[in-house]
Amino acid sequence: MKTDIQIANEAKMKPISVIAGKLGMTEDDIEFYGKYKAKVTDELYKKVESNEDGKLILVTAINPTPAGEGKTTTTVGLGQAMGELGKNAIIALREPSLGPCMGIKGGAAGGGYAQVVPMEDINLHFTGDIHAVSIAHNLLSAMLDNHLQQGNTLGIDPRQIVWKRVVDMNDRALRSIVVGLGGKMQGVPREDGFMITVASEVMAILCLASDLEDLKNRLSRIIVAYTYNGDPVTAGDLNAQGAMTALLKDAIKPNLVQTLENTPALMHGGPFANIAHGCNSIRATKLALKLSDIVITEAGFGADLGAEKFLDIKCRKGNLKPDAIVIVATIRALKYNGGISKQELGTANVLAVEKGFVNLEKHIENLQQYNVPIVVTLNSFVTDSDEEISLVKEKCEGMGCEFAISQVWEKGGKGGIELAQKVLETLETKQSNFTPLYNENDSIEDKIMCVATKIYGASNVNYTPKAKKSIKKIIDMGLDKLPVCIAKTQYSFSDNAKLLGRPEGFDITVREINISAGAGFIVAITGNVMTMPGLPKKPAAENIDVDETGKISGLF
Amino acid sequence: MKTDIQIANEAKMKPISVIAGKLGMTEDDIEFYGKYKAKVTDELYKKVESNEDGKLILVTAINPTPAGEGKTTTTVGLGQAMGELGKNAIIALREPSLGPCMGIKGGAAGGGYAQVVPMEDINLHFTGDIHAVSIAHNLLSAMLDNHLQQGNTLGIDPRQIVWKRVVDMNDRALRSIVVGLGGKMQGVPREDGFMITVASEVMAILCLASDLEDLKNRLSRIIVAYTYNGDPVTAGDLNAQGAMTALLKDAIKPNLVQTLENTPALMHGGPFANIAHGCNSIRATKLALKLSDIVITEAGFGADLGAEKFLDIKCRKGNLKPDAIVIVATIRALKYNGGISKQELGTANVLAVEKGFVNLEKHIENLQQYNVPIVVTLNSFVTDSDEEISLVKEKCEGMGCEFAISQVWEKGGKGGIELAQKVLETLETKQSNFTPLYNENDSIEDKIMCVATKIYGASNVNYTPKAKKSIKKIIDMGLDKLPVCIAKTQYSFSDNAKLLGRPEGFDITVREINISAGAGFIVAITGNVMTMPGLPKKPAAENIDVDETGKISGLF
Repeated sequence: MKTDIQIANEAKMKPISVIAGKLGMTEDDIEFYGKYKAKVTDELYKKVESNEDGKLILVTAINPTPAGEGKTTTTVGLGQAMGELGKNAIIALREPSLGPCMGIKGGAAGGGYAQVVPMEDINLHFTGDIHAVSIAHNLLSAMLDNHLQQGNTLGIDPRQIVWKRVVDMNDRALRSIVVGLGGKMQGVPREDGFMITVASEVMAILCLASDLEDLKNRLSRIIVAYTYNGDPVTAGDLNAQGAMTALLKDAIKPNLVQTLENTPALMHGGPFANIAHGCNSIRATKLALKLSDIVITEAGFGADLGAEKFLDIKCRKGNLKPDAIVIVATIRALKYNGGISKQELGTANVLAVEKGFVNLEKHIENLQQYNVPIVVTLNSFVTDSDEEISLVKEKCEGMGCEFAISQVWEKGGKGGIELAQKVLETLETKQSNFTPLYNENDSIEDKIMCVATKIYGASNVNYTPKAKKSIKKIIDMGLDKLPVCIAKTQYSFSDNAKLLGRPEGFDITVREINISAGAGFIVAITGNVMTMPGLPKKPAAENIDVDETGKISGLF
Repeated sequence: MKTDIQIANEAKMKPISVIAGKLGMTEDDIEFYGKYKAKVTDELYKKVESNEDGKLILVTAINPTPAGEGKTTTTVGLGQAMGELGKNAIIALREPSLGPCMGIKGGAAGGGYAQVVPMEDINLHFTGDIHAVSIAHNLLSAMLDNHLQQGNTLGIDPRQIVWKRVVDMNDRALRSIVVGLGGKMQGVPREDGFMITVASEVMAILCLASDLEDLKNRLSRIIVAYTYNGDPVTAGDLNAQGAMTALLKDAIKPNLVQTLENTPALMHGGPFANIAHGCNSIRATKLALKLSDIVITEAGFGADLGAEKFLDIKCRKGNLKPDAIVIVATIRALKYNGGISKQELGTANVLAVEKGFVNLEKHIENLQQYNVPIVVTLNSFVTDSDEEISLVKEKCEGMGCEFAISQVWEKGGKGGIELAQKVLETLETKQSNFTPLYNENDSIEDKIMCVATKIYGASNVNYTPKAKKSIKKIIDMGLDKLPVCIAKTQYSFSDNAKLLGRPEGFDITVREINISAGAGFIVAITGNVMTMPGLPKKPAAENIDVDETGKISGLF
């Protein structure tokens, strides 16, 4: 079997102007970044404003397992399959972070014969959006520390600075640091730390902003610290929002690329799916809806984190109405949820599938609460038995979902035709009556309780004293009428990563509550959330190479 | 008078494909970054390999003063003037760093009617080269700290790590930090610090590498630390060079832009001119020589730092032979060197000009040692008197130099015609017999002594015990047969920033000697070299804004 990058290198890409042309755009509507990448200009938005919206399909998944589910691969493959069926479809994806690419994961633009290309460009710097987010974020950090150094007229308490620095790299040594050492001329000493760039509130803001003006307003609302009196200090107080917006003026424009089969793909933005909402930008999704009949997008992690935030944060804020949801599962991952070890997932085991199905079942029940029709797809592996597949199909259909096998990893668009047909059938025959789960004007505790009980299946929510104090503070600041963004382990419905399947009778403990006032959501943290990953013993970077012609290898 | 960005916004730019066309390139030879920026493909090098080289003109200056000299402005204006005279000329410049742009300086792409455009793009992210250098550098940092964390099989001494991290921002709080705090899982605690990205050895390497393979080999030779046994540890030992090269595969391609008058400009690379060699890339300069009859390039700071390194490092390494050197001075700066305060520079004062001329005189004498013909230009101000100008003209011509007034800041190319004509006359009538100042196989002390006495005018060179120890170590490692890159204050010929004019009878003290084994030079540090600037009380960033149409203001 070829590696992803080998397959990607053999792709017959069309010039990006041709892809843009398929969507009715001219060369004046795009800004080229090389021959196969482009940004869509701001002007195009006005041109297409009055177009009717296409249909919006969300691709999500069961809880991630070491077995791998292939959510992005399915998203890409479904888009390719729509092309096979002669449909005008766009894929709207997040753009990958460099950190994981150099760490464990390798690339993140789909896999096998369902990839977005040019794969190596997309995985390395792409069009520079993430670098722009990094430097806009770090400009604010520099201005904040400079304010301390230059006399601190705002009265910022260096012990109450909540704005860390960022770098788009897995670099654990930067998690906890002390800055400003070396004497009077070298800054004010204080504890600090770096996060990976995609954890930056600037990234979340970029993905929620409707336009440049909204972007600037949101940036100015970012709370970076508190004064000795306990009052919030914002980016606006430091006068940073103009320069930050200037640094993001191109990053706010969605990026156009293509799949291996020349399906148009808008890849834009990529916030974390724990402390942020984990979806591509509203701006890209809205544009995609104006440019095509069918838009296929995805959300981070499993449906309990990613889809919930897509629906309750992104759709709410962007006034988006999904028409169908695809849940991706694999027989292997279901078995893993049924208690089978990673080594034995290749052996047929109907009982284990049945036992693990409860995880998928709970995700289906959850998403049905949003009144959006559901299609379940099994991303197939050669080791899957007919009996195992039949069991899942029967159960899904029994719950009122459509069901399809997907073979896009090995067959590309052709392997996704069954799935595409089920999705099209759903769009034609089933009505979506999307409603968010909770009212954002409810109290913080009620909103968290709603997600915890209705989505996670928790019995109750506990709060640490610190979290309770934060809730009071957020109410005092008048910022409590915002959606909640719950940071929880992606591996379990509960806040304990080891509880697979469908845990019940558990409580969720909210340890910390933060406010992302610029992004416009309240972050409830239920465990150790890692905002700066580390490199493994042998980083993926050690395998990456480039030959004298510029051809890259080792980027999986 | 309009601001630089106002003038830049009114520029009638031509599509970059048209500019490329002027140089005989087709659309296949370039990669677009929007409509007005492009990278030149690697393939083009082979196409133009057999072209005859054009003439190479270096623009340098007297020691910088608070009065401002306008070296980049003159470089750009001279290029524009060549266009006015119907010559096929290219400007080869460094690309600006974001840090100073957000700090004190504002933009760095020329000024007035002699600018490179699109000015705001060039000053913000341009084509992402500096971001690529940042992340390639920081990948190596992350891999280094990860090596410590994962067992340290190479036996790296955490107290002897010489590889700092970088960010393209003025952020003094990051100068001295402690990383790896927080316990066993969060890295190995150690002292560290950040430099601004342009101070990275990766930037110096990018600017000296002949191609991707050379780039990778140089990256692998970077010394990042020493073991407990005192042996050097390189990027190659950490297996980082492949991934770093992959991250730099586009950054190594020169960027094509244009001046306000549509003169082609290759802007590529921008290393510091103190701890590094301060010139644009060899790759861009060589390409420019193949593409046009006249290439105008510049070097950082004054001629004692920038031109010396251009000639002794860049030209030596790149086998380049400059045909003429332009030295930029102003009446105001000469008066400042003559002891007049900044406030009184607007008052005519022939005596002060005469007194300050010694600075220019010494630069002329210095550069004549390289056997390259010299043109002196006065970048004119309205306050300059005819008498002052005549004095300088007479003295320069008395030393065998051509002389011209330049008014490019207010008049663009038309204001540079006199200068352009003198340069063309020089190229036609005077022979360049370029020879570097010293033999790189001489001892480290001899090479430093040569530059210190022949260029700075020092009587002697002293070494701290630490510097002496480093010399011994460099000899032991067999790396002493490399050119020396002396880091010294840019404000004086001496290592004391306050000694203006032409100081004599002083010693230079070398406090520290480092080795940039990848770049291929020995760095001798003669004072406090600031590799991470700070922001001023009111950072330039506070004035930068962008309106709802994406138009940027406040970027001077």
